[in-house]
Amino acid sequence: MTIHKAAAVGGGVIGAGWVARLLLNGIDVSIFDPDPQAARKVDEVMQGARRAYRQMCPEGLPREGTLTFAKTIAEAVADAGFIQESVPERLELKHKVLAEIDAHAPAHAVIGSSTSGIKPSDMQSAMKKHPERLVVGHPFNPVYLLPLVEVVGGEATARDTIEKAREIYASIGMKPVVVRKEIEAFVGDRLLEAMWREALWLIKDGICTVEELDDIMRYSFGLRWAQMGMFQVYRIAGGEAGMRHFMAQFGPCLEWPWTKLTDVPEFNDELVDLIAGQSDEQSGKWSIRELEQIRDDNLVAMMQALGRQNDGKGWGAGELLNDYTARLAKLASGQKV
Amino acid sequence: MTIHKAAAVGGGVIGAGWVARLLLNGIDVSIFDPDPQAARKVDEVMQGARRAYRQMCPEGLPREGTLTFAKTIAEAVADAGFIQESVPERLELKHKVLAEIDAHAPAHAVIGSSTSGIKPSDMQSAMKKHPERLVVGHPFNPVYLLPLVEVVGGEATARDTIEKAREIYASIGMKPVVVRKEIEAFVGDRLLEAMWREALWLIKDGICTVEELDDIMRYSFGLRWAQMGMFQVYRIAGGEAGMRHFMAQFGPCLEWPWTKLTDVPEFNDELVDLIAGQSDEQSGKWSIRELEQIRDDNLVAMMQALGRQNDGKGWGAGELLNDYTARLAKLASGQKV
Repeated sequence: MTIHKAAAVGGGVIGAGWVARLLLNGIDVSIFDPDPQAARKVDEVMQGARRAYRQMCPEGLPREGTLTFAKTIAEAVADAGFIQESVPERLELKHKVLAEIDAHAPAHAVIGSSTSGIKPSDMQSAMKKHPERLVVGHPFNPVYLLPLVEVVGGEATARDTIEKAREIYASIGMKPVVVRKEIEAFVGDRLLEAMWREALWLIKDGICTVEELDDIMRYSFGLRWAQMGMFQVYRIAGGEAGMRHFMAQFGPCLEWPWTKLTDVPEFNDELVDLIAGQSDEQSGKWSIRELEQIRDDNLVAMMQALGRQNDGKGWGAGELLNDYTARLAKLASGQKV
Repeated sequence: MTIHKAAAVGGGVIGAGWVARLLLNGIDVSIFDPDPQAARKVDEVMQGARRAYRQMCPEGLPREGTLTFAKTIAEAVADAGFIQESVPERLELKHKVLAEIDAHAPAHAVIGSSTSGIKPSDMQSAMKKHPERLVVGHPFNPVYLLPLVEVVGGEATARDTIEKAREIYASIGMKPVVVRKEIEAFVGDRLLEAMWREALWLIKDGICTVEELDDIMRYSFGLRWAQMGMFQVYRIAGGEAGMRHFMAQFGPCLEWPWTKLTDVPEFNDELVDLIAGQSDEQSGKWSIRELEQIRDDNLVAMMQALGRQNDGKGWGAGELLNDYTARLAKLASGQKV
């Protein structure tokens, strides 16, 4: 399923990111945003997105879609096959906006909401005509670059809508992951919010500063998670014995005061079997040794890529890698370091 | 401060990773590990590390240090300037091993413990001679590649030991971050454990599978965190108004059922000032627009680097980027997609 005409309702950081991704895919977009500064803000995001896409596609980009600023939601959505709503996270505002989209959008249109955490069922109750065409399509900033979109259906969402949404998002270069049950904050923001709350404690209690905490992330597990998620990473950490060994080794930590999150699932055979089984499905096709090599190759390549940034001076772990390899080269040539 | 002779006590995944990093820096290492398979296991890690370092330094590597297997801890540490302990996470075992290291190590040696979460004060109580030379030096797997090491002192740790440890770790290409107050699990594992516990709920409750959860991480915030930590990322998300705006916008989420971590710090002006002030110190030298460009350049470069992996087929977000740019190229040349 490809789309030719899309509508965006809301043009903040997220809404403008959607507009940029759509336009750069050659899709015409009609946008509604009551902010008098909307045109300027969207244009600034577009400039950043164009810059990034030129790096991604140095041989040339498709002709951009046309952007039209509509005066009303009705006008914006009138002939759109796909509509993405990205207004602020207040339920009564979502209700008002979605009711209006629902009243004026073509019956076949797919309506995605960018909400970070509101359940689709709680939003589609405001849609009187076709609530079945609403899904949550939760993206990550910057929307024009990060591929993930969490697709979540509500009680009234049609199965066909989920399928169409998945195809639409994939057709503009994204990675749709359909969340199996709707809960507040879905999966991504559940994980992010747990870590964010823990981080606030660490700062408030003076354990570290925000810069130290950021460094602790980006020189370690951040690099791991850019290429493998936590379960695949921990499977490798289990060594030759894999996920089951990892679980057995770190299961007891759940009893320890290692986080403010103290409401933990019971650590029993059933949980270990569930996770080890799913881990086998995910990664069983590789040996631990193969996974280690894939991980290492990825880490080296990403750090080297970061090392070429900032006019060759490097950024973060890449800047450190430049210093490190320069030091190793000196040692290799017999110089004192 | 550089070291010429180091000792490793414990040669599991973490201990062997330390050995590999040290040897590849040309440092001689004496290791003690009672596991009869230790030599084979360390050798396998060395093979992986050599492979990675050859990619990092295609022009050649320093002459490797010599590895010696000692029969006792006393023998391993006898003439080492730096000793890294990486035995399993049981306090009574740590006590036993550290007491023995303490009894036989040179008085000037720096002793680092790889513990993921035990407070150094709780460990150094077992050291009768020189507890002041113990620090936690908590690394991340794979130790030979990931730069971060959390340096944590205990009640008896000398200020000078912290400084020496920082220099030693930096001299072997690492990024030491000194944690300001000792708490269980320090900073990295506090964050990791909060997210891990939330993840276990998501799997147990059937919201997603481990593969879906991993994909949700590695196609979104994992990529962000490989180059900027959460605070710098959120500063950008605040848009032109920065960190203060972000905090005001997402502060109320702390009251929402967005995670099982419900014990949250009070969200007040003091907390906002603390975080916004530290964020200014960290990132105030760049405008939001500059930070966006740095972030975007990093993201594109890392995804492209991942796109060249796996014999050019790509891995994760890199494989997806290859498909995406191929699709955009077709569109650009006027072909149907």
